[in-house]
Amino acid sequence: MFVPSGDLLEYYAGPASDVYFQRARDTLLGEHLDPVVTMEYFGDRAGVLCGMNQALDVLRPALGGEGEAWALAEGDRIEAREVVMRVKARYSLFGVYETALLGMLASCTGWATRAREVVDAAAGTRVISFGARHVHPLVGPIMEYAAVVGGCVGCATPLGSQLAGLAGPSGTMPHAMILVFGDTVPAALAFDKHMGPDVLRVVLVDTFKDEAEESLRVAAALKERLRGVRLDTPWERGRVTVPLVKEVRARLDQAGFEQVGIFVSGGLSVERIREFVAEEAPVYSFGVGMEIAAAPPIGFTADIKEVDGEVRTKRGRIPGLTHAPRLQKVI
Amino acid sequence: MFVPSGDLLEYYAGPASDVYFQRARDTLLGEHLDPVVTMEYFGDRAGVLCGMNQALDVLRPALGGEGEAWALAEGDRIEAREVVMRVKARYSLFGVYETALLGMLASCTGWATRAREVVDAAAGTRVISFGARHVHPLVGPIMEYAAVVGGCVGCATPLGSQLAGLAGPSGTMPHAMILVFGDTVPAALAFDKHMGPDVLRVVLVDTFKDEAEESLRVAAALKERLRGVRLDTPWERGRVTVPLVKEVRARLDQAGFEQVGIFVSGGLSVERIREFVAEEAPVYSFGVGMEIAAAPPIGFTADIKEVDGEVRTKRGRIPGLTHAPRLQKVI
Amino acid sequence: MFVPSGDLLEYYAGPASDVYFQRARDTLLGEHLDPVVTMEYFGDRAGVLCGMNQALDVLRPALGGEGEAWALAEGDRIEAREVVMRVKARYSLFGVYETALLGMLASCTGWATRAREVVDAAAGTRVISFGARHVHPLVGPIMEYAAVVGGCVGCATPLGSQLAGLAGPSGTMPHAMILVFGDTVPAALAFDKHMGPDVLRVVLVDTFKDEAEESLRVAAALKERLRGVRLDTPWERGRVTVPLVKEVRARLDQAGFEQVGIFVSGGLSVERIREFVAEEAPVYSFGVGMEIAAAPPIGFTADIKEVDGEVRTKRGRIPGLTHAPRLQKVI
Amino acid sequence: MFVPSGDLLEYYAGPASDVYFQRARDTLLGEHLDPVVTMEYFGDRAGVLCGMNQALDVLRPALGGEGEAWALAEGDRIEAREVVMRVKARYSLFGVYETALLGMLASCTGWATRAREVVDAAAGTRVISFGARHVHPLVGPIMEYAAVVGGCVGCATPLGSQLAGLAGPSGTMPHAMILVFGDTVPAALAFDKHMGPDVLRVVLVDTFKDEAEESLRVAAALKERLRGVRLDTPWERGRVTVPLVKEVRARLDQAGFEQVGIFVSGGLSVERIREFVAEEAPVYSFGVGMEIAAAPPIGFTADIKEVDGEVRTKRGRIPGLTHAPRLQKVI
Amino acid sequence: MFVPSGDLLEYYAGPASDVYFQRARDTLLGEHLDPVVTMEYFGDRAGVLCGMNQALDVLRPALGGEGEAWALAEGDRIEAREVVMRVKARYSLFGVYETALLGMLASCTGWATRAREVVDAAAGTRVISFGARHVHPLVGPIMEYAAVVGGCVGCATPLGSQLAGLAGPSGTMPHAMILVFGDTVPAALAFDKHMGPDVLRVVLVDTFKDEAEESLRVAAALKERLRGVRLDTPWERGRVTVPLVKEVRARLDQAGFEQVGIFVSGGLSVERIREFVAEEAPVYSFGVGMEIAAAPPIGFTADIKEVDGEVRTKRGRIPGLTHAPRLQKVI
Amino acid sequence: MFVPSGDLLEYYAGPASDVYFQRARDTLLGEHLDPVVTMEYFGDRAGVLCGMNQALDVLRPALGGEGEAWALAEGDRIEAREVVMRVKARYSLFGVYETALLGMLASCTGWATRAREVVDAAAGTRVISFGARHVHPLVGPIMEYAAVVGGCVGCATPLGSQLAGLAGPSGTMPHAMILVFGDTVPAALAFDKHMGPDVLRVVLVDTFKDEAEESLRVAAALKERLRGVRLDTPWERGRVTVPLVKEVRARLDQAGFEQVGIFVSGGLSVERIREFVAEEAPVYSFGVGMEIAAAPPIGFTADIKEVDGEVRTKRGRIPGLTHAPRLQKVI
Repeated sequence: MFVPSGDLLEYYAGPASDVYFQRARDTLLGEHLDPVVTMEYFGDRAGVLCGMNQALDVLRPALGGEGEAWALAEGDRIEAREVVMRVKARYSLFGVYETALLGMLASCTGWATRAREVVDAAAGTRVISFGARHVHPLVGPIMEYAAVVGGCVGCATPLGSQLAGLAGPSGTMPHAMILVFGDTVPAALAFDKHMGPDVLRVVLVDTFKDEAEESLRVAAALKERLRGVRLDTPWERGRVTVPLVKEVRARLDQAGFEQVGIFVSGGLSVERIREFVAEEAPVYSFGVGMEIAAAPPIGFTADIKEVDGEVRTKRGRIPGLTHAPRLQKVI
Repeated sequence: MFVPSGDLLEYYAGPASDVYFQRARDTLLGEHLDPVVTMEYFGDRAGVLCGMNQALDVLRPALGGEGEAWALAEGDRIEAREVVMRVKARYSLFGVYETALLGMLASCTGWATRAREVVDAAAGTRVISFGARHVHPLVGPIMEYAAVVGGCVGCATPLGSQLAGLAGPSGTMPHAMILVFGDTVPAALAFDKHMGPDVLRVVLVDTFKDEAEESLRVAAALKERLRGVRLDTPWERGRVTVPLVKEVRARLDQAGFEQVGIFVSGGLSVERIREFVAEEAPVYSFGVGMEIAAAPPIGFTADIKEVDGEVRTKRGRIPGLTHAPRLQKVI
Repeated sequence: MFVPSGDLLEYYAGPASDVYFQRARDTLLGEHLDPVVTMEYFGDRAGVLCGMNQALDVLRPALGGEGEAWALAEGDRIEAREVVMRVKARYSLFGVYETALLGMLASCTGWATRAREVVDAAAGTRVISFGARHVHPLVGPIMEYAAVVGGCVGCATPLGSQLAGLAGPSGTMPHAMILVFGDTVPAALAFDKHMGPDVLRVVLVDTFKDEAEESLRVAAALKERLRGVRLDTPWERGRVTVPLVKEVRARLDQAGFEQVGIFVSGGLSVERIREFVAEEAPVYSFGVGMEIAAAPPIGFTADIKEVDGEVRTKRGRIPGLTHAPRLQKVI
Repeated sequence: MFVPSGDLLEYYAGPASDVYFQRARDTLLGEHLDPVVTMEYFGDRAGVLCGMNQALDVLRPALGGEGEAWALAEGDRIEAREVVMRVKARYSLFGVYETALLGMLASCTGWATRAREVVDAAAGTRVISFGARHVHPLVGPIMEYAAVVGGCVGCATPLGSQLAGLAGPSGTMPHAMILVFGDTVPAALAFDKHMGPDVLRVVLVDTFKDEAEESLRVAAALKERLRGVRLDTPWERGRVTVPLVKEVRARLDQAGFEQVGIFVSGGLSVERIREFVAEEAPVYSFGVGMEIAAAPPIGFTADIKEVDGEVRTKRGRIPGLTHAPRLQKVI
Repeated sequence: MFVPSGDLLEYYAGPASDVYFQRARDTLLGEHLDPVVTMEYFGDRAGVLCGMNQALDVLRPALGGEGEAWALAEGDRIEAREVVMRVKARYSLFGVYETALLGMLASCTGWATRAREVVDAAAGTRVISFGARHVHPLVGPIMEYAAVVGGCVGCATPLGSQLAGLAGPSGTMPHAMILVFGDTVPAALAFDKHMGPDVLRVVLVDTFKDEAEESLRVAAALKERLRGVRLDTPWERGRVTVPLVKEVRARLDQAGFEQVGIFVSGGLSVERIREFVAEEAPVYSFGVGMEIAAAPPIGFTADIKEVDGEVRTKRGRIPGLTHAPRLQKVI
Repeated sequence: MFVPSGDLLEYYAGPASDVYFQRARDTLLGEHLDPVVTMEYFGDRAGVLCGMNQALDVLRPALGGEGEAWALAEGDRIEAREVVMRVKARYSLFGVYETALLGMLASCTGWATRAREVVDAAAGTRVISFGARHVHPLVGPIMEYAAVVGGCVGCATPLGSQLAGLAGPSGTMPHAMILVFGDTVPAALAFDKHMGPDVLRVVLVDTFKDEAEESLRVAAALKERLRGVRLDTPWERGRVTVPLVKEVRARLDQAGFEQVGIFVSGGLSVERIREFVAEEAPVYSFGVGMEIAAAPPIGFTADIKEVDGEVRTKRGRIPGLTHAPRLQKVI
């Protein structure tokens, strides 16, 4: 099985690079051709730029102090076909990294853009990324980082949390743990007993019983230590609905547990979140998984626009530098 | 920046694992609860199973010879909600790998499933995966591996090719190389001069001139050494169309270059490939990028169905083992 | 408030008749015009004929032995615009009953037709009409009668049951009764204690707890005396779903209660019933309310086609008797 | 055949009541349980409340002076799920009337709501309900009452007119009467001769001849005594169209019969009425039948919210009294 | 105002020719270039070829016995992009006629193709073209000719009839004539009196009275001399409907006028004709106007495929002669 | 083949007139009926009136100084069913011209109306009609005249240009001419050499090579004499796109050829022109063919409204003169 290790630059330039960039490098070297080219990078849809920091982490050592680069900043809103990066350097220095550079921007901008839509839909309610399980684990934490760039306030993996500069990962408890206990209340009490003070006491309440009933049982057991209940009703039971949230809220309040927040998860989409918001469901926080994880990449393209100072580009593109006043010099 | 290295098992169990699995482990250990559980894994849509080999590479060392596992094979067609793997072992041995196991299956099955749709659309014409640039480079080669599991006959990165057990990666030449030369013909001649005999002479013909005209110029220069021309017309020029392929084919044939195949790339989707096939465009091979790379993951779920021999599962699911006669014992 | 009483014929001819039929009668009498007319009745859509028996109960005494009538039979499938009844008599004998005759056919045929669609969708599973509460109580039992004519095997009101010639009305228990008890199990035990042997022990299981959990509690309490559980999950909890039925079935079977049938109700439509059938949900019987009760009437029209033996009709219609070989002489 | 007679309360509590309410009553009596409950009634769609007066006519004698009730008024606009009535009393006093109470509200509110839509579409032009023939005659007059509550200015049956508090029923003449005469002009003259002064001289003009021609013939015969002509063109001749109304108006005016109004009927829907209004057709009054008669009922629900002073309700609903400041004490 | 006269060839080559063909001729003459070219003509949609005879009437004198031409026949079904004519001659002989040749084919093939759709929809019932009034009178008869090529059995203008080789034009009587008379019956009698025996006695019956009534009046007046009635109900009265045709047929038959055919006209489209046919309306003949007259032209293109024996064509087309085995030598 | 010649009035009254107008004339003459009638003409859709001048050219000599006429002006915007002309004269003077008068208005108004839509879409950019080849050559120049009435600034045939009062026809060069030369540059040089100074040097640049490349070659050859390039990319190559125009503009400007305008043609529709305008493509002029040529005629109708001073019209229409204050006396 594959293990990217040691020198990631070597990995990006070789095993992970489209082979034709390597063949181009060899052909040009064979002809002793190595002009200074100016290359521009742009995406094919509007969105929230992400992956640029990783790209610059590749480019800086690659250029070795020789060329120049200009870019927009991580998290910037970008337009379709807007130039997000420009590199001016000898082609041999960075040509073979094109696969890696475009791939970082494509995946991360896709995720950050969708996260922004989700966060906008939530209209101020907290959104946490819970979707690491829906992408390959080599990029799970990177997806979570992008989700935070897009506006999420938390994520589930320790590395994702660290990449995003958060205090720590977010999480409640899985159904598996409660199933091993066989009842939610003793599971909640044990969780409370063994977890450190930094871990929020949020108990999952849909494993065995009706969510409203279980919420009241758990609240009666943990009392003021209970910070929240998580509703994750499976689709076989109609998923979490707006009326369920309102009813659980009302029943908790009537029993004196106003301090207990309601955490909602399970197949949340932009559309469903808009419904919760429109109907003023009293949600404390949304846990979003597949909606962000499955965001399609945004395709990025790199175009040569000048060769040794002469404007030149391929058919279909306009030769010469594009007007791009927002670019900042980064290398 | 992140470098997953050394012991990937540690990485999957810790930094890349949803933190609540780790908290569940700690709570259960605190209570000295470690029953043998039976867990079943299934996807939410039909597709082509992929990622199972990687998942077993994680499970085998994790179980350490103690539990049992049954699974379907890499590349199997699966139904929605069909059980693809069953693990029976002490929960502490494999609970924290759930994020990684599900993520491998989700991404890889998503890519392989879409690749199969593309390959089915191509109806016998060769399909090559050229989409590594559209996903993060840490998973680019894995995406290409999944594309080959789904039916592609080639891919673009050396590592992807190696993971898929192919003879070598596929590729022609990038626009950048031709732009550095300033003319396609000398670029093609230099490529022919410097590449080894294993590299197919396929020349990209849309950089500077009309594709039909350039095809004839290149063929006249490389003569019988020319194996193919690649049409990658940009969308600004209407992309590659069926009549363009037919015209280039006719003009090459009229000039005596029947041996030159036509390679088509550029924004190919299942739908556009169906058009090429329906109108009998004489395509030798399709290069597909974003269509496969942007395939959404297929969500996978792991359910406990038995605890210490007693049937038990969460609300919404049917307790006890699911009838799954296709499973084979793998551990 | 209105009480139709005593002589219904008087009611139909006077207070409940469109006043212009009474004015027409007075005008014709004033002119001593009372020809024998032949009138034909037809509906504007295809369906299942119902209300004909009531109509003939009006016509027979009205004609007083003088005229003739031909009709199709209650429950017959009819085509759009097919003649369902023909009356040949002096106009003064039956003209003022037109409002009543058409209204009986319109409402009852509408209900029976929709009931047939529901029953066809159920594909052999029993359908019971529970919709009396959705129509005015003066016609609630008549609606139920029509539902049985359309194919339902039971209905909820005693009078509906009697009109339809059934052994007795169908019913389980309302949420209100369980709410008064405060728990489903004692309510079920009391129901079992006080009801006669002819009443099926079917217990409503969604009032307080999760349906699967409550089903098992009730089954444990009533044991082999329990005949069924009724699932009536409110829309706020996602209504009854196919997986819920399957899960309750599985959990009951695993606990040894194979004899307990599952009764499904709550917002059932033709479309939802088709889903249950298509996915083979193990439903014992469907309780359908609004879907049948809200069926739109089928508009019926009465046309004079002959006057004193001369063919005559209004513009837009074809004069003379319509070819209608299925009609049978009834008066 | 069924004759609801004598004591309607007995009818509502027995033959017309869902049998399970009677079984619930018997079970609770068997257990000597008869708490004071608070029940709330609401509809599932917005509309114009109707049937409330009939419901209170049932409740007042049923409660026998013991309980309390609050309600909105007949004709009030209501929101979806707004509480329209609240009853606080011993359950045994009113539980068995639930089928009747809900049914009155469902049918009548459905009709009144659709009538309001029709009246709104007519934008000031008079609308008369002519649909008694499209519903069972036991509720025909009640439907007409509801249509007037919804905004119609007239209806066709004497009892409907009386229930609605109108001066008398509306009507012109049926095709049957004209067909017996064999010509419209003598029919019109006879009608004029025999009807009292309170009956409007409105003549139906589409039976034998072109409507424009017949209108002029009738006007020439009745002269200034003619109050209107009714256009009821059958669908076989394209129904009444906007240009037909304008043409008849113009031809009448050119002949000096400005005092003759145009009455339009025949398959009028909200949509078609909007067209007449949008194109400023000179209509004096619309006669609407099926569009109102076929209005689907609005489903009403009754929920227990308190039992002996304790908040209690079923799963899916919020326990305790709903905030409903518009309710007025009625019992 | 324009009068094309005398020598039509001069007109086509000069005033009616796109000026750039004349400039091309002058430029080529200036350079003494006049190769033999092979030109192919094709349409962009499938249809019924028409206008070819006119085109050959231009080409024959133009080529003056020098070149060659191959073509499909007038009335042939053609495929989209199928070659319908090929001309091999010196370019100077026919280049300037391209506007005229393409225009003849475009208009006529458009009309003939739509006529065929109409005729196919009529499924054996006779269709007559009445649309000359909807196109410029300089081409009205040509449109009618094309309609007959497409399958119509008659047309309305004398010249159209002559071009199509019919015995004579078809026509009944206009509303204007009847309006001058002031009543249909005297108009019909006068028509019968003054027309020769070759003119069918078909009377228009919707001018003043209801069509059914007028049909019977006219039939009573002309008796066995009446050959048909024409229904042309204006859209303000709902146009001619299927039930109107059936009713008029029934009333004529009941009165003993089985010999009178029903001619239908007025806004007939392919779709409406299909309705008449599907519902088996007893129509003797359809008069179709705008549906054929407004048929869009089918765009024709002329491509040079060879120049002095060398294959040559423009970008986008395949050089050399197209495989077209159905072409016949015509010049 | 047909040649309309000599006396067009005779042609319109005879060979090109619907025969039933001639039969009506003969019948009325036979009865010595020749009242003064008032006839009104209107179209069935809104648009730009055209053909009126031709119609008056027919009417004036026909009336021979005897009657009166009122009309709207050529080029006026008209509403659906607005009266565009009124004639008051003895019926025998103009009845037989109805086919011709309506046909002129129908075709010309259809073309002018569509031209106006195209011109509006172009939002100020020049539109030239190039569609003569898509209609029969007898009306090609008339179509072009109507296009100019609708707002086009030029057209392609000499006669069309003359009818429209333009300085001369517009045109560049056909593909055929360039194909005969075998290369665009010598063709352009020859064209420049042989054409007079009044002919714009606009060169077609898509025949052999990529449009951008060819534009630069042609500009380099003709230098400041080059007035424009015409892009007419065939659909097989994706037609002319917005990015192609922008790219050619940029490349011309970068090479110093700012004076060269870009002429776009090839399948231009209202919709495509809107795209060019919305995306600010630097187009100098649009050449539009089929979009205008295939405009459906607008159906015109002539109604008698008075006969010898008495209001009279057919069923469906309002008798008497229509209020039409915009009409001006023209005869």
